[in-house]
Amino acid sequence: METVNHSTAEDIAVKILLKSWTTQVARITDIVTSLSDNDLQKEIAPGKNTGIYILGHMVAVHDAMLPLLGFGSKLYPQLEQIFITSPDKAGHSFPPASDLRKYWSEINDLLLQHYTKFDFEAWLTRHEAVSPEDFVKEPHRNKLNVLISRTTHMSYHHGQLVLLKSKIQD
Amino acid sequence: METVNHSTAEDIAVKILLKSWTTQVARITDIVTSLSDNDLQKEIAPGKNTGIYILGHMVAVHDAMLPLLGFGSKLYPQLEQIFITSPDKAGHSFPPASDLRKYWSEINDLLLQHYTKFDFEAWLTRHEAVSPEDFVKEPHRNKLNVLISRTTHMSYHHGQLVLLKSKIQD
Repeated sequence: METVNHSTAEDIAVKILLKSWTTQVARITDIVTSLSDNDLQKEIAPGKNTGIYILGHMVAVHDAMLPLLGFGSKLYPQLEQIFITSPDKAGHSFPPASDLRKYWSEINDLLLQHYTKFDFEAWLTRHEAVSPEDFVKEPHRNKLNVLISRTTHMSYHHGQLVLLKSKIQD
Repeated sequence: METVNHSTAEDIAVKILLKSWTTQVARITDIVTSLSDNDLQKEIAPGKNTGIYILGHMVAVHDAMLPLLGFGSKLYPQLEQIFITSPDKAGHSFPPASDLRKYWSEINDLLLQHYTKFDFEAWLTRHEAVSPEDFVKEPHRNKLNVLISRTTHMSYHHGQLVLLKSKIQD
């Protein structure tokens, strides 16, 4: 009974965390598909990041989750330099918005395929940026931590993209 | 051994979730204490919400977590009408920013005192907005769900407040 109860509670916790992730992904997807390519070129506030930079940034961050979580190599490693290492307006030319939207869906679909195979114990295993030795001392540096931090990261940028959306609707 | 491993993994998961919460609280606290009362009156983007409305909104949302998580009554129930039911610029007069900053710290300190008494199992129990009957069918409507959704909610508004901060630093 004890084991069954634990497993049930753990399954529920995993389900809630995945729901939080997929909800944030869906919110970003809704916004970036409702904005035209031209709309995405606009700044979320005067002098601040453009919509397309934020979209590219999230694509690059999620692409980097593939190796970090042990799911394989990045699909679009060239995006790191443009959207993570460099700020907006650093002089890089960006891929077309239509490509970034496609990458966004492709990478998130792939992540979710892997997520659904993970039980609670699997989420608690180390991520690839920490060595097995360090993980013994720092067991919180696990895949669950990556999932949660990337979920709040999406929410942060969602709060910004929504400004761009309502700006255009005005 | 099985029980010990489960408990350890569950403790780590709880620790990660609380760290995510306290990190978001600290980020919001840092911004709203670094902005002057006058700065907080400004809009995050032209025609959008003011900093003080967003601060008041988060105070009211966290205050409502006290009864929702079974920790007691709201401390400032009068804030709901101003900062949750009504949008910004609806004609309500707001409490001074200095009061809202104080409420923010007070409520988050109180929430954290309760959080630290909760183990994994306690987080999985139902929140007060769901009946015991419905909870049997919908076990994800638990306190953990509230914690996670309010964490992403903070991150959403953090992404907006940071625009106000950099605006003033320009």
